Amino acid sequence: MASKKRLYTLTLSCPDRTGIVSTVTSFIANLGGWITDASQHGDFTDHHFFMRVQILADSLKMDVDEFRERFADMAAEFEMDWQITDSEAKKRVVILVSKQDHCLYDLLYRYRSQEFEFEVPCIISNHENMRSFVEWHGIPYHCLPISAENKQHQYAEMVKLFEQHKADVIVLARYMQVLSPEICRLFPNKIINIHHSFLPSFVGAKPYHQAYERGVKMIGATCHYVTEELDQGPIIEQDVNRVDHSCSLEDMINLGKDVEKNVLSRGLRYHVEDRILVHGNKTIVFD
Amino acid sequence: MASKKRLYTLTLSCPDRTGIVSTVTSFIANLGGWITDASQHGDFTDHHFFMRVQILADSLKMDVDEFRERFADMAAEFEMDWQITDSEAKKRVVILVSKQDHCLYDLLYRYRSQEFEFEVPCIISNHENMRSFVEWHGIPYHCLPISAENKQHQYAEMVKLFEQHKADVIVLARYMQVLSPEICRLFPNKIINIHHSFLPSFVGAKPYHQAYERGVKMIGATCHYVTEELDQGPIIEQDVNRVDHSCSLEDMINLGKDVEKNVLSRGLRYHVEDRILVHGNKTIVFD
Amino acid sequence: MASKKRLYTLTLSCPDRTGIVSTVTSFIANLGGWITDASQHGDFTDHHFFMRVQILADSLKMDVDEFRERFADMAAEFEMDWQITDSEAKKRVVILVSKQDHCLYDLLYRYRSQEFEFEVPCIISNHENMRSFVEWHGIPYHCLPISAENKQHQYAEMVKLFEQHKADVIVLARYMQVLSPEICRLFPNKIINIHHSFLPSFVGAKPYHQAYERGVKMIGATCHYVTEELDQGPIIEQDVNRVDHSCSLEDMINLGKDVEKNVLSRGLRYHVEDRILVHGNKTIVFD
Amino acid sequence: MASKKRLYTLTLSCPDRTGIVSTVTSFIANLGGWITDASQHGDFTDHHFFMRVQILADSLKMDVDEFRERFADMAAEFEMDWQITDSEAKKRVVILVSKQDHCLYDLLYRYRSQEFEFEVPCIISNHENMRSFVEWHGIPYHCLPISAENKQHQYAEMVKLFEQHKADVIVLARYMQVLSPEICRLFPNKIINIHHSFLPSFVGAKPYHQAYERGVKMIGATCHYVTEELDQGPIIEQDVNRVDHSCSLEDMINLGKDVEKNVLSRGLRYHVEDRILVHGNKTIVFD
Repeated sequence: MASKKRLYTLTLSCPDRTGIVSTVTSFIANLGGWITDASQHGDFTDHHFFMRVQILADSLKMDVDEFRERFADMAAEFEMDWQITDSEAKKRVVILVSKQDHCLYDLLYRYRSQEFEFEVPCIISNHENMRSFVEWHGIPYHCLPISAENKQHQYAEMVKLFEQHKADVIVLARYMQVLSPEICRLFPNKIINIHHSFLPSFVGAKPYHQAYERGVKMIGATCHYVTEELDQGPIIEQDVNRVDHSCSLEDMINLGKDVEKNVLSRGLRYHVEDRILVHGNKTIVFD
Repeated sequence: MASKKRLYTLTLSCPDRTGIVSTVTSFIANLGGWITDASQHGDFTDHHFFMRVQILADSLKMDVDEFRERFADMAAEFEMDWQITDSEAKKRVVILVSKQDHCLYDLLYRYRSQEFEFEVPCIISNHENMRSFVEWHGIPYHCLPISAENKQHQYAEMVKLFEQHKADVIVLARYMQVLSPEICRLFPNKIINIHHSFLPSFVGAKPYHQAYERGVKMIGATCHYVTEELDQGPIIEQDVNRVDHSCSLEDMINLGKDVEKNVLSRGLRYHVEDRILVHGNKTIVFD
Repeated sequence: MASKKRLYTLTLSCPDRTGIVSTVTSFIANLGGWITDASQHGDFTDHHFFMRVQILADSLKMDVDEFRERFADMAAEFEMDWQITDSEAKKRVVILVSKQDHCLYDLLYRYRSQEFEFEVPCIISNHENMRSFVEWHGIPYHCLPISAENKQHQYAEMVKLFEQHKADVIVLARYMQVLSPEICRLFPNKIINIHHSFLPSFVGAKPYHQAYERGVKMIGATCHYVTEELDQGPIIEQDVNRVDHSCSLEDMINLGKDVEKNVLSRGLRYHVEDRILVHGNKTIVFD
Repeated sequence: MASKKRLYTLTLSCPDRTGIVSTVTSFIANLGGWITDASQHGDFTDHHFFMRVQILADSLKMDVDEFRERFADMAAEFEMDWQITDSEAKKRVVILVSKQDHCLYDLLYRYRSQEFEFEVPCIISNHENMRSFVEWHGIPYHCLPISAENKQHQYAEMVKLFEQHKADVIVLARYMQVLSPEICRLFPNKIINIHHSFLPSFVGAKPYHQAYERGVKMIGATCHYVTEELDQGPIIEQDVNRVDHSCSLEDMINLGKDVEKNVLSRGLRYHVEDRILVHGNKTIVFD
């Protein structure tokens, strides 16, 4: 969770072999780096290795750019996929929302109370209804109504907003439109969706209706990265809530809201704290 | 849960209308019946009513047969589907098992400690491996190996065993064979299966493999009545357990065992305590 | 949960004996009343009976005052403690808050979205910090700073506000002052507190610090009615969240917030929907 | 969880400083050691560091004794508390039990199915009732009845059995006698107890009775190391189960059994897989 101290976070993955941890940590130690947190994972099925290291920025006496330069040779040798981020450069989270506002309300509380660290450069909706609430929080609100005719144009506007606001992450906080394949391809592993079912159950529209019809005894929510295939992207986080025969469809929808809020906020925190590595269609989450 | 006092349990469902609860409870009160527990549910979507009443047997001063006779007229008037059972006539539970023995082991503990009340007249397996353990508990063990050739014959033998042992319920405690449609039709809402996934996710074979491939963050188990359509029957109970990227397939299978045991034993308890009413493809569970 | 139809809710408790359910439901049926939901509980240890009945207002063709008059004789005969409420007379919930605002934020979302039905006539704080947010929701905000010297006077002001705003319930949404014994006595079973521990563990101040010191593996929250004895009142609802050695005290506090919000909102919903009956120092919650 | 490959597990703790991870992992890499799993934790409050490393035995080409010799100098330099274990030397778990047998039954299933790896050299009870079941599993059963008069003598016998059977761990699987302070001192962090409450709530005798009286909405269980002070030792694992007003004391006891079984078996697994480091009165659990 949020730490007041300035931290660099290094994440990497590479083919597994002897000596990765020792090489990486020795590299850091030789620069005087104090490691505050380290996590590793080796996937036995395809022999791939994953690592996340948090370093006290003050102990390193260099900025991330200089670290990047020095680290690059070794990274190349190990064929690493890697990045290093600086906690002072807070992630910029653009939130998309439709009429259902519970997830937005919840995220804005966490943003305002700095429960974990992120910026919200703007919020985009296809409706006007949340403008006043969002603007009360001091955040710009863009309304891009979507129709069959204007879709292509509005999505182009959206991409402009993402770029103009330097979005690091895009959160679909119950945004009820399916993004275009182009947008999905432009922002791989950078668009986070909350789906209101325990995937892979109840893919697509009206999952609570589907759950009610099937008579399940628990409902769930799934936070996942968006890919071109609907509700099929890498799963970040899931949770459930108990229901029973006395729950009407409306009760299920209300009970589900609390699960959705918690799952989405956990998933977003993992992302902005660089705790997630994507491997194929799965995630490694160092929580 | 298990009560030492002798109880009659009346369950009924009928088209909803004014006065059902008052008519039923007045009928019981006029016979001097002391109601220890009562539950009702009205389904608003199709206006059907469900009720379960527990009556102290001693207060009624008649056996269930006499109650049945007296109650029949009123039940007909309200078009009730109904039954009354006597806690002294413990349900007879025939358990079917294959090589995976964790659910059997768990059920036998609950049977032996009388955690809730049921008889186990016999256990049927397609393997010999649990014979000694079952017989240590004083329960007859029948081994009916299943092959493509002998299937029809063995299923006929199985039905004979069900009848000979007067089975009230049949539990598939990780029995890895699909029962024939005939057996499913012979025992409607009397065959309970534990499926090792959170249905409707991962229907069919090897659900943990499917869950591992999809990268879900929770695994589950589902206890349901068996119908002719595989894994599609009315759901009785479900639960989940958290997993993460560090879990191998073997870890998932092990973690899943604990969920399966708990879900199956809860589902069986609901059934033997007459807490379940089936309506269409859903269950009302008065727990 | 919230139902669009107008409902009367009758709750009662009395010494247990044969015929209570039948008498009450016959009384209602004779008036043409359609029961949409009914729950009963008999306490075997001291032979006391509890009941909650929801009646479709339209089916009764009388208002609650007339029902009260007609019901009174029977109620007296059975020595009932009872009340009947009308869903159109929404409960008036006065919320007290200090600097920690997560529970307030959460309750205001549920209020604004009418997740369940209640009014918020005003909010009282000993700090100014939430004024603008509360007023954005259109709710009057009263700041009553508390010091050792002015305590008695401010509590008298508070009581005036409760009376002036016709408070049905008072919610301590992380209000960090201990109310006076006089206030506790004035509003028995009407003041709801959220305590940030799994009571009876960690009574009193700084429960997360206590939990951190003890090294527990789960933290919790407890919603309870306030009595004169600190943190000893009847428990309405509890829940927990998993923590581990990697959680700092700050992490625990953040993780705890989500539990507190959920537990308090569930407890308040039970109260405003007349689902809670208090018996000695325990609650019966018909959820 | 159980791995088929032979592993060495190194656990260590020492004052925190720069370079520990790099020194330890370089040491291992220089010996050709393949690290399959590594976990670290730094305690910021008192600047202490904790680490667990699993090494593929085959990659090291030496036994643990030789590793111990080579590692000792570096360990001394860093003031490490450390140990290395070999997965082929399975932990020897002596189980103590009284009349309540659900935890024993559960542990024996996990032992028999090798869900995780441990030996059970013998089981000790103060009653005869589980002899036949234990002996069916091929495990010696010692009955040491305890009375006020013979206590000292029987505890001496017990210690003899621990030594004779080379116990690595002693599990109190609902053993209802308080061990002598001498035994507690002889086996520090080697005696694991399951307490049937969510500690620190309901210390001492009859915790379910205490929970029932207090009207809690969840019951719990706590697995902890035994110290001389009753129920005050370092907590290893906890969990809870929901209860409500309809639960009798007997229901609570039955629902609690499932929590106790799961919590104890998880705690024991953590111990036998060397996942627990004790620090003051807290545990670091690398699960």
